[in-house]
Amino acid sequence: MDKQVAILLADGFEEGEAIIILDIFRRLQINIEALSIGNQLELTSYHNVKMQADALLKDRAATLYDAIIMPGGPQGARNLGNSEEVVEFVKKHLAADKYVCPFCSAGAHVMAKNNLLGSKKYTTSGKNYELYNDGNYVDQNIVIEGKLITGKGLGVVFEYAFTLAALFAPIDKVKWEADHIYFYHWQP
Amino acid sequence: MDKQVAILLADGFEEGEAIIILDIFRRLQINIEALSIGNQLELTSYHNVKMQADALLKDRAATLYDAIIMPGGPQGARNLGNSEEVVEFVKKHLAADKYVCPFCSAGAHVMAKNNLLGSKKYTTSGKNYELYNDGNYVDQNIVIEGKLITGKGLGVVFEYAFTLAALFAPIDKVKWEADHIYFYHWQP
Repeated sequence: MDKQVAILLADGFEEGEAIIILDIFRRLQINIEALSIGNQLELTSYHNVKMQADALLKDRAATLYDAIIMPGGPQGARNLGNSEEVVEFVKKHLAADKYVCPFCSAGAHVMAKNNLLGSKKYTTSGKNYELYNDGNYVDQNIVIEGKLITGKGLGVVFEYAFTLAALFAPIDKVKWEADHIYFYHWQP
Repeated sequence: MDKQVAILLADGFEEGEAIIILDIFRRLQINIEALSIGNQLELTSYHNVKMQADALLKDRAATLYDAIIMPGGPQGARNLGNSEEVVEFVKKHLAADKYVCPFCSAGAHVMAKNNLLGSKKYTTSGKNYELYNDGNYVDQNIVIEGKLITGKGLGVVFEYAFTLAALFAPIDKVKWEADHIYFYHWQP
């Protein structure tokens, strides 16, 4: 069966992070759905862009994806981390040994806040790691510990998107796409 | 008066290009409006994300912006270049010596297609420059000729966004923001 990936969106999500990941995945024909964690598809991003998700998380709560991705955005990541449905969804994917990919402040506000990291290495934006007593913060752009893949923030979103895409698409195709869009900063 | 910037969007616009530019500009408090060239605010991007523009181009046709930006996307850029309203809007801004910033395939499908370049240097994505007999194609990531600023495509959108932002925000602030988001590939 084809791989299925979800990206979880709450109001205040970092739009550049979410959109670059969706864009790169769809260029590579990796199935990715944007799931709104609220009761409506329409969301307002960190910098006030209205966008529509593909489906509601509550209509996908029973689905097990191959990877779930969460973007940052100061309020967007907090909204994810404050949602019981999101925390349950993340726990289910951790338990099933699926990829869990919190980017930017989602590493802190979703994962560390809810004690979902334990002793795992992770990264997150700024000093957010100081807010919580969970996880083993590492000062690197992208940190891979098993199936937990974290990244620092917006400026490394292409590297992060290609790193994740390479889990689900042939490496030659991913490298071709990076070259095709003139992105030369990613080393697989 | 504060500077005003517009980004023109048509169905099929490259969402990563448009959103990163909006994101960076809004992080730097530069006024930027997303204008839909059609009759409704809602647009569908290249990779099928529904987004809403801030206003309609037809309601801003009399406005002179300090810069107008156009993203690529194979069909999105063609839709811009096939619109009489867009071509008139670009001509008005060229005549008024405002910044005109066609990114990715918009350099070809909007500018060269409508003979808006003359002998000016520009860049565009792929081999699109071969389609039209206008402008002086240069194989560089970003090309600045007076107030015409072109860029190759998605993978250099951060460099392009920061280059444009530095026209309207203090350089120290722009450099701070690049650093803040962990983007280290831009040299002002």
